[in-house]
Amino acid sequence: MRILVVNVNTTVSVTDAIAASARAVAAPGTEIVGLTPRFGAESVEGNLESYLAAVGVADAVARFEGPFDAVIQAGYGEHGREGLQEMLDVPVVDITEAAATTAMYLGHRYSVVTTLDRTVPLIEDRLLLAGLDRRCASVRASGLAVLELEEDPVRAVAAIVDQAKRAVSDDHAEVICLGCGGMAGLESRVRDATGVPVVDGVPAAVTIAESLVRLGLTTSKTRTYAAPRRKRITGFPLEEQ
Amino acid sequence: MRILVVNVNTTVSVTDAIAASARAVAAPGTEIVGLTPRFGAESVEGNLESYLAAVGVADAVARFEGPFDAVIQAGYGEHGREGLQEMLDVPVVDITEAAATTAMYLGHRYSVVTTLDRTVPLIEDRLLLAGLDRRCASVRASGLAVLELEEDPVRAVAAIVDQAKRAVSDDHAEVICLGCGGMAGLESRVRDATGVPVVDGVPAAVTIAESLVRLGLTTSKTRTYAAPRRKRITGFPLEEQ
Amino acid sequence: MRILVVNVNTTVSVTDAIAASARAVAAPGTEIVGLTPRFGAESVEGNLESYLAAVGVADAVARFEGPFDAVIQAGYGEHGREGLQEMLDVPVVDITEAAATTAMYLGHRYSVVTTLDRTVPLIEDRLLLAGLDRRCASVRASGLAVLELEEDPVRAVAAIVDQAKRAVSDDHAEVICLGCGGMAGLESRVRDATGVPVVDGVPAAVTIAESLVRLGLTTSKTRTYAAPRRKRITGFPLEEQ
Amino acid sequence: MRILVVNVNTTVSVTDAIAASARAVAAPGTEIVGLTPRFGAESVEGNLESYLAAVGVADAVARFEGPFDAVIQAGYGEHGREGLQEMLDVPVVDITEAAATTAMYLGHRYSVVTTLDRTVPLIEDRLLLAGLDRRCASVRASGLAVLELEEDPVRAVAAIVDQAKRAVSDDHAEVICLGCGGMAGLESRVRDATGVPVVDGVPAAVTIAESLVRLGLTTSKTRTYAAPRRKRITGFPLEEQ
Amino acid sequence: MRILVVNVNTTVSVTDAIAASARAVAAPGTEIVGLTPRFGAESVEGNLESYLAAVGVADAVARFEGPFDAVIQAGYGEHGREGLQEMLDVPVVDITEAAATTAMYLGHRYSVVTTLDRTVPLIEDRLLLAGLDRRCASVRASGLAVLELEEDPVRAVAAIVDQAKRAVSDDHAEVICLGCGGMAGLESRVRDATGVPVVDGVPAAVTIAESLVRLGLTTSKTRTYAAPRRKRITGFPLEEQ
Amino acid sequence: MRILVVNVNTTVSVTDAIAASARAVAAPGTEIVGLTPRFGAESVEGNLESYLAAVGVADAVARFEGPFDAVIQAGYGEHGREGLQEMLDVPVVDITEAAATTAMYLGHRYSVVTTLDRTVPLIEDRLLLAGLDRRCASVRASGLAVLELEEDPVRAVAAIVDQAKRAVSDDHAEVICLGCGGMAGLESRVRDATGVPVVDGVPAAVTIAESLVRLGLTTSKTRTYAAPRRKRITGFPLEEQ
Repeated sequence: MRILVVNVNTTVSVTDAIAASARAVAAPGTEIVGLTPRFGAESVEGNLESYLAAVGVADAVARFEGPFDAVIQAGYGEHGREGLQEMLDVPVVDITEAAATTAMYLGHRYSVVTTLDRTVPLIEDRLLLAGLDRRCASVRASGLAVLELEEDPVRAVAAIVDQAKRAVSDDHAEVICLGCGGMAGLESRVRDATGVPVVDGVPAAVTIAESLVRLGLTTSKTRTYAAPRRKRITGFPLEEQ
Repeated sequence: MRILVVNVNTTVSVTDAIAASARAVAAPGTEIVGLTPRFGAESVEGNLESYLAAVGVADAVARFEGPFDAVIQAGYGEHGREGLQEMLDVPVVDITEAAATTAMYLGHRYSVVTTLDRTVPLIEDRLLLAGLDRRCASVRASGLAVLELEEDPVRAVAAIVDQAKRAVSDDHAEVICLGCGGMAGLESRVRDATGVPVVDGVPAAVTIAESLVRLGLTTSKTRTYAAPRRKRITGFPLEEQ
Repeated sequence: MRILVVNVNTTVSVTDAIAASARAVAAPGTEIVGLTPRFGAESVEGNLESYLAAVGVADAVARFEGPFDAVIQAGYGEHGREGLQEMLDVPVVDITEAAATTAMYLGHRYSVVTTLDRTVPLIEDRLLLAGLDRRCASVRASGLAVLELEEDPVRAVAAIVDQAKRAVSDDHAEVICLGCGGMAGLESRVRDATGVPVVDGVPAAVTIAESLVRLGLTTSKTRTYAAPRRKRITGFPLEEQ
Repeated sequence: MRILVVNVNTTVSVTDAIAASARAVAAPGTEIVGLTPRFGAESVEGNLESYLAAVGVADAVARFEGPFDAVIQAGYGEHGREGLQEMLDVPVVDITEAAATTAMYLGHRYSVVTTLDRTVPLIEDRLLLAGLDRRCASVRASGLAVLELEEDPVRAVAAIVDQAKRAVSDDHAEVICLGCGGMAGLESRVRDATGVPVVDGVPAAVTIAESLVRLGLTTSKTRTYAAPRRKRITGFPLEEQ
Repeated sequence: MRILVVNVNTTVSVTDAIAASARAVAAPGTEIVGLTPRFGAESVEGNLESYLAAVGVADAVARFEGPFDAVIQAGYGEHGREGLQEMLDVPVVDITEAAATTAMYLGHRYSVVTTLDRTVPLIEDRLLLAGLDRRCASVRASGLAVLELEEDPVRAVAAIVDQAKRAVSDDHAEVICLGCGGMAGLESRVRDATGVPVVDGVPAAVTIAESLVRLGLTTSKTRTYAAPRRKRITGFPLEEQ
Repeated sequence: MRILVVNVNTTVSVTDAIAASARAVAAPGTEIVGLTPRFGAESVEGNLESYLAAVGVADAVARFEGPFDAVIQAGYGEHGREGLQEMLDVPVVDITEAAATTAMYLGHRYSVVTTLDRTVPLIEDRLLLAGLDRRCASVRASGLAVLELEEDPVRAVAAIVDQAKRAVSDDHAEVICLGCGGMAGLESRVRDATGVPVVDGVPAAVTIAESLVRLGLTTSKTRTYAAPRRKRITGFPLEEQ
């Protein structure tokens, strides 16, 4: 089985880290292919960049040559998942939702710890739309930008652990979701500091995508995610579609 | 005052109709400028096309030369409004929301009558995110595509009137919103057939945009709609931003 | 166009201030008529007084001689708007709702800062009924009574600014609504202190009422706001109706 | 113990019927006093009349001489209960809420069958505000006015039974609430026709009011229902308060 | 009238205290019978124990010989009430719900103060299922176990009062519900300390059960609470059913 | 990895069918062990039987000798999952929730088709508690009992297909969940008849349980699902615990 794991930003080192994180949990026989959008922002931290990413991810998937069995959109709280579902028959898994449904099997309420405060409403909006908001105790921000996670990991971990602890003590979270595709590898440190299970969206999404494929399930094409109607697309990366 | 009214599809005749509808209600001294995206779909009837439109609309606004006081995104149930709000300080008004808040001043519950059934969930999702869903009695589809409204207006009106009547009798709607930027000019026919007020989003949005400007109000830049952070954008229409 | 702006309390100086605030934003050609109820409380700060106001406002509108195009109920969180809508065909705009829908165009979440703590639940109830509660981050009280706003404006401003700041920092409000008809003129001070847009309900309501009139929209008479049935009213101001 | 049962309309025969219905279930030692407002509408079927009733009921209670232990507001879906709670320390029970909480002990979901369609949204609004709406399967209208219940009881029963049956079969109601103070005495006929328990609000409210008194419980005066502040009331029935 | 008051744990002294609390408020002519499950936990403080209690309570009621008119399940936030409703025609009243509906007649919002933090989600879940959650300001834990209430009443009262005060000041509760069957007798102390009404679930449930019996109302058997279908039950206390 | 799949009824042939269905999808190296409760009902179709099942399932798991890595509770809409989570550290997956989260990756809204109408509210309640209700379009009943599925499979399939079709056409479901542990094997027939993806809870739960184990995730023991406190359990199957 081949799963495309698509980064939402254009930073290749982030794609590599995400793909490695995905491979670490993939079942034997699952091939993980990391994709980086041809265009877009070097990190996605807001709506405008996220809309660019929605198109960049769709473009990356559309240009991929060869068969694949599922797609993972590896951005936390980003736009775009519904467009992929229209474009494809194979399952599409967003890591925001993958982390949430996984967390909901482990505790009564979960919190998300993300990067900048400005991205909190985006994540809240995605969980609301996905119908996964009621058991979300809080979405908290560490205050550090996506790329600072790579630049100053010690400080990043400290800030994330601090918010995770507050989520448990103040918001009654029983599980923590790492709210950024680039937080791979922090699970054990946050778990050790808080004593609660910690879910990283990328590996969670890999197991969900594999499961859907094994179950022979594909995206419903009956209404919301029906294939786009045949029409003229102008002057755009997806024009050739 | 100058208001940009941005079509979400690339069909110039639709832009012209929307701009004419906007001008018909604009106050003396308000200049309406219709914009058509440089790229995207000839009609927007699904998520993938809507994500393209989000970027196409942002591009069209970014390339506009000269000052303006407000922007209207003239697509019903489309993605993209939050990105414009980040990009701009001036008010941004989405016609889906403009129709809804206007309708809520006129009746206890409102319904939306749109084009294809597949776009119903998009509109429902936008109203949910906007916090304007609770008084929405229903979103109903006439079954006709966006461009069929122009091609076969008699049949289109009949189908829209039929759904509007059902919304009133079956769903207890007290106001009807015309759920497509291209339905301009149908208000009186639907109103005569149903006996309830009918709201077209484009003129409603014009008065709201004018009002926000007159009140001296601008988009809050404190958190969700803060200006995008300075970063590298690659290979994209908005790269030069 | 003539708009009746009806104060909910019997204090004429408050009516004058409200009307002045309305006139300051009214379009050329809009006549603002301030009305004061013949009976009721000198300030409205609770349910019992608010029910009196509902009848006092209806009485004042019913006794007004001459035509008018819209009515603004200029009390924050008060009962009565639905009764006016039954009584009239022209649009009725409540300032609680006007401030809320205006704020929702400017930021992801808004807070209301009102006078006494005891009026907070009334405002919350009105927003709940109006279906405008989900994006309300909080309703906060300055602790000062309606009439103290006039008596000790310096202290009033300080208390309001303090709560507005907390709404932004603690509740993640991105817009502040001034939750009292008598707070006219405080917008700029609260905006300067918080850095977020500030909405006063009275001017917001004026632009909305004007917009509805310009759009040719009237109250739906099909169900909830149908004209009262012909029946015997006994011993009451509205008996002659 | 003495309980005031206050009719919301000015028709004395309705007051008498309500009081008789209350007495039929009152415990030994409970005195039921029926009150009729001095002013207001002969039947309450809309918001404007209901706001008049809110003041008429408050006036009737305020003018009552002698002690009492609880007050029942005997109108279905009416405004006014919160004002009485501010005015009084003794418990106030609204029959809309009394029927709902009683029904919720008997079945998973309940429906309300009321008179005219126009009053349905009022009842829905009251249940929403009371936080008792989630287990309400539907509010249905028989299409007959309040006073027609007295004038043509055979037809009234048939229409009510018809809607009650539909509530059970179509809306999955497991309990029916009679949604009008004047439907006293219809319980057995609706129960026999539907096979589900039927709750009349007036007797339900009597037992709840008695219970609150027996438990020594009084209205919380800490915030929402604190006594009105001392202030000038002008030209009104309640002026002497 | 005879009411069975069933303890959820196997500690007879708790049953006795509950029954005494019930008798103190029962009407003349009401016989209170306290029942203790034959099996289960000495105190119920979690889901597993609560599921045991659900069966233990059903067993205790099934084995009771002689007629009875209503059943009170005297555990706060426990599973099991729906099973009793299937098994019986007479009304079943859960004290969690009895306290909540009683509190909702007294103030705008209520809080529950319970024992251990781990039981908070159980109570929240029961209120959610019962549709009584919206006006619940908070569920707070004193941190003391059920049996510690008996062992160290001074400390228990202090801890409960402390949380009740915070519920009023921080969460805007206007009524306090004592969230444990074993808190009988603490009402006056908590009321004196907080100044708000305090509801104990057991006496509240007694008056509600008596009311339902007096009104001639029984459990709806039409769908959710229909009698169990005839089938083979194996190797279990309820086998003989 | 060893996964216990626990039937909720005492019918061994149902356990065998469930286990076979689980094995059909289990990964290489996953051992599926089917458990049947020692006591309880031959089929679970109501709350009382479901509470018995909750204890019967806990007893079966507690008595299992040897290690295991996860538990699947294979009843649709049943009580008991939270108790298992307290009792165990390994993940516990309920098939009601497994089907729902799986369906939510495939379509905008899903419906459940179950057996008897009386079990519909149980399933709705479980989805509400799980926070998975908002995207549930409907829960529909085929009208056939659990054991009739085995006795008359042709009629059962016809009835289930009929409801599934209505869910798609009338309720706008885009995915169908088979709402009974005993419906294994019907996926393809319902999918062929409706054209939408069909999810059976047992195989879905197997892949989720496997995923949680592979991710090294265990139940959060911090609050709701903390291990039961050490206390005296009397006269019960679980006494020896």
